[in-house]
Amino acid sequence: MRVIGVLRSCFREKFGTPRQARLAPGATATLTIAAEHKPEQSLAGLERFSHLWLLSYLHLNTNKRLLPKVHPPRLRGKSIGLFASRSPHRPSPIGLSLVRLVGIDGATLHLSGIDLVDGTPILDIKPYVPESDSDPEASTGWLKNIPFPALKVAFAEQAEKDVAAAERRLGGIGIKGLLIDVLRHDIRNPRDRAQSREGVDLGFYLHDFEARFSVEDGTATVLRLATGAAMHRNTRRAKR
Amino acid sequence: MRVIGVLRSCFREKFGTPRQARLAPGATATLTIAAEHKPEQSLAGLERFSHLWLLSYLHLNTNKRLLPKVHPPRLRGKSIGLFASRSPHRPSPIGLSLVRLVGIDGATLHLSGIDLVDGTPILDIKPYVPESDSDPEASTGWLKNIPFPALKVAFAEQAEKDVAAAERRLGGIGIKGLLIDVLRHDIRNPRDRAQSREGVDLGFYLHDFEARFSVEDGTATVLRLATGAAMHRNTRRAKR
Repeated sequence: MRVIGVLRSCFREKFGTPRQARLAPGATATLTIAAEHKPEQSLAGLERFSHLWLLSYLHLNTNKRLLPKVHPPRLRGKSIGLFASRSPHRPSPIGLSLVRLVGIDGATLHLSGIDLVDGTPILDIKPYVPESDSDPEASTGWLKNIPFPALKVAFAEQAEKDVAAAERRLGGIGIKGLLIDVLRHDIRNPRDRAQSREGVDLGFYLHDFEARFSVEDGTATVLRLATGAAMHRNTRRAKR
Repeated sequence: MRVIGVLRSCFREKFGTPRQARLAPGATATLTIAAEHKPEQSLAGLERFSHLWLLSYLHLNTNKRLLPKVHPPRLRGKSIGLFASRSPHRPSPIGLSLVRLVGIDGATLHLSGIDLVDGTPILDIKPYVPESDSDPEASTGWLKNIPFPALKVAFAEQAEKDVAAAERRLGGIGIKGLLIDVLRHDIRNPRDRAQSREGVDLGFYLHDFEARFSVEDGTATVLRLATGAAMHRNTRRAKR
């Protein structure tokens, strides 16, 4: 297996990274294909596709031992077989993400709808071919009628100011919409009691700022964004 | 990367194996999950899905050197970038196949719509989740309005008899329909001049028999099936 490029994603740590592709359409990333794979030739024709598959190496898995049952957030405490889930903790930790191809600039792909963290090694990209890659008749097993945990999302006064400043600085990137899409799916781990306490102040990195929020009564409220160099100074999450 | 099981497929060699999943709905395979992955637990809940992804190691790739451009059969001689194609000759030779889950019997999955050759090592299976794995709005690039090369399929008198006998012996497997689905997509390599000669006698192994056919005037005619031990005696294709 060879790495064809490393993903540069707006998600800087696992906490806050969507659990599936397409949950946050405004989530962006770039992928530059390494020169050894001759991108000027090997990417020819890809620009005519709107979507592609990213096959990724899920490099942040830290589980020493594989568990044959997992607890997906959508099952709210119940467990399911590992192979009946999309858990990243798998014998072969290969991620499969259907993403939108926004454009190609030389060897660099601009992507959106990402569910991968910054620094993820990409093993392969393939064009999405609906006739062989989809089935409108498919049944969806235990997922049927079980949505992801959903929260309302609100913004504190300070957060509104910070978001406006961040959107001015980053130029047109819809930070507010992205925060809403990320937080409405409840990024907390339901099995982490500290995270799940009502009103506790939580944070995650997105693009180059830190978003702070808290959850109470089914509403995630964005409290503020710390912009600038905070992420680089702050190393407490380096081992996540 | 770890192999979770080895696919037992009706296709016994590359020649005759469909170029994509879902082209031959009657193409069957079984996959037995290795005991170390605790199938009695890790498969729990998978039976409720109708479709799953097979991530496979494309182990028969013999190319010593990767070419950044490929010649897919659908482009009839024109080339396209490797990453704009589903060619098996990739830096990370991972196959991605959407297949139908017919049933589960202990640790063994019964699958159909296969595009993989017998003996393919499987790295991972994942449930197919339409909301994150499909997009009905996707555009299909250079594939748009370019069908696979299509042939009519006919059966010689001897072949009709052989097919009837094979179907009796294998019990209900639709050999005739499978042969039609395989041959109508023209399994010949358009860049192989010997294969492409009109009327030349060609053969491939399917289940435990050898199908002989020839192509003339856009029709593939199945000539006969050699049943029984022929495949095992015949080693000339072992190096394919």
